[in-house]
Amino acid sequence: MTDPFTTAPAIDDLRAARRRIAPYARVTPVLRSEWLDDLAGCALHFKCENLQRGGAFKFRGACNAVFSLDDAQAARGVVTQSSGNHGAAVALACRLRGIRATVVVPAGAPKVKLALIREAGAEIVPCEVQQSDRDRVTRGVLEATGGSYIHPYNDARVIAGQGTATLELLEAVPGLDTVVAPVSGGGLMSGTAIAAHAIDPAIRAIGAEPEGARDAHDSLASGERITGRVAKTICDGLRAELGPLTFAILREHLDAILLAEEDEIVAAMRLVWDRLKLVIEPSCAVPLAVILRHRERFAGRRVGVILSGGNVDLDALPWARST
Amino acid sequence: MTDPFTTAPAIDDLRAARRRIAPYARVTPVLRSEWLDDLAGCALHFKCENLQRGGAFKFRGACNAVFSLDDAQAARGVVTQSSGNHGAAVALACRLRGIRATVVVPAGAPKVKLALIREAGAEIVPCEVQQSDRDRVTRGVLEATGGSYIHPYNDARVIAGQGTATLELLEAVPGLDTVVAPVSGGGLMSGTAIAAHAIDPAIRAIGAEPEGARDAHDSLASGERITGRVAKTICDGLRAELGPLTFAILREHLDAILLAEEDEIVAAMRLVWDRLKLVIEPSCAVPLAVILRHRERFAGRRVGVILSGGNVDLDALPWARST
Repeated sequence: MTDPFTTAPAIDDLRAARRRIAPYARVTPVLRSEWLDDLAGCALHFKCENLQRGGAFKFRGACNAVFSLDDAQAARGVVTQSSGNHGAAVALACRLRGIRATVVVPAGAPKVKLALIREAGAEIVPCEVQQSDRDRVTRGVLEATGGSYIHPYNDARVIAGQGTATLELLEAVPGLDTVVAPVSGGGLMSGTAIAAHAIDPAIRAIGAEPEGARDAHDSLASGERITGRVAKTICDGLRAELGPLTFAILREHLDAILLAEEDEIVAAMRLVWDRLKLVIEPSCAVPLAVILRHRERFAGRRVGVILSGGNVDLDALPWARST
Repeated sequence: MTDPFTTAPAIDDLRAARRRIAPYARVTPVLRSEWLDDLAGCALHFKCENLQRGGAFKFRGACNAVFSLDDAQAARGVVTQSSGNHGAAVALACRLRGIRATVVVPAGAPKVKLALIREAGAEIVPCEVQQSDRDRVTRGVLEATGGSYIHPYNDARVIAGQGTATLELLEAVPGLDTVVAPVSGGGLMSGTAIAAHAIDPAIRAIGAEPEGARDAHDSLASGERITGRVAKTICDGLRAELGPLTFAILREHLDAILLAEEDEIVAAMRLVWDRLKLVIEPSCAVPLAVILRHRERFAGRRVGVILSGGNVDLDALPWARST
């Protein structure tokens, strides 16, 4: 078996992931809005992963990784690190398989996401926010349990799972010429691009990133993977940095990473609530924000947009704070 | 042609409505939540009319009525009265047909709904909140324009259109044994019950009403249609009273109207936002509120829930007010 942390998944791995997660994951709907199309000047097709189990696309990758383990591995449980949706997704997938999950959670994780991890029955191990401490604590849990590590994004099993959303999208809406997804650690974007290009190499795969967390943008521009920056953005789901595997995949597949400012992200989030009637989290609004900011790049196009997730604290909405 | 204000639509009228609105209306998704199923103790299938064009089921009935007019009628335009989603739906349907719409709007209509009516290009004529003034102003517009009146609910064309949501639901999810919808003027509930009973007479059709607007409940209990009460509820979409036609249909078809308190409605609304990731308006939460309040009536059942709409002011959420 190839090393999932260093080898990119192929389209057959995505197709296998789709079959593997089919009993557990939802086939999410694709929604449209004539009003948003008029505003953006292109035809937008929103793949609603906020309506996925656990409220985010993360369940696809976690479920594929957890159900890829053989029985002996599964019996020793699963370990991951995450401040949010990936942790909750792994916890849920492990509960469905009936095995133990341990999630290493850095300080400052959003309450609403911590609650989802706990609700799914995972053990939570706290750590400091620095990557070095996250890794130290994770290693300790792995040594103590003999469990299997599932990386939140730098992991072919996870990337293959995330790519299944785009397989569904392009099957539901043939003929899209562009797909846009948010970029954080790059797992969703990698899976999205691999799926799109396997179906049609001419599809443009575009990443969306907040200006305040533009490490992936700058990494691709410079050809060097940037690490160690502190992200400054409301998008709590987009503060990770690319891994070696996702960096390599994005270099091969991406047409561009486009940026949006914080106020543009909040405005796009509110548009989706208002016009699509969907609860999405700030990270999830970045693709629409970049489409509206860089209208000329999308004019007249048939665009697929991955809505990544909807786990947001309803008592602390960004527009409530600013008034 | 039969009088649409006095004759109930038959299932063939609903099927004709479905064909008539197909080029314009969306086939909305049916969503599920394992978490809400556990909470409610039954299998819930949410038909998402908040994702309908215009953000509410109302577009179905308005579209059917507007496209039922012959060309000579259509040329003289359409008149309706509404403080909310019906007005916006008629305005949108008229824009799609390229004809003139006039909406008589009583004082105190929600800003977000007024904006939708205006955005769709309808002429707005204000009136006082009393039914007598609404009728007086509406008659004036009808006499001045020679237009066709479309009633918000006491109208077979509108009822037939609303029933198409349940035709779609029962096709997507065969074997439901219960359907629940909110009751205000009774148009949605009438269409829902007619559709359900044509497909399977054993399906229980249950209405949901706020305690503070329980006129339909009390009308069915007493056998007399109650009018002239002042509704006291956060559910701005549920303040109308039954018409003679909808009263007769509900008497024939309904198993029960169940009630919920205001705090239960707000809690159910928040559950849908949190767990289904859907933006819904307070009126739309009443069915889930009654299911959770009257759990024993739904235990183990396969339940269809019509989520009626999502047009809510994002700056004035009920849980923000109460903290």
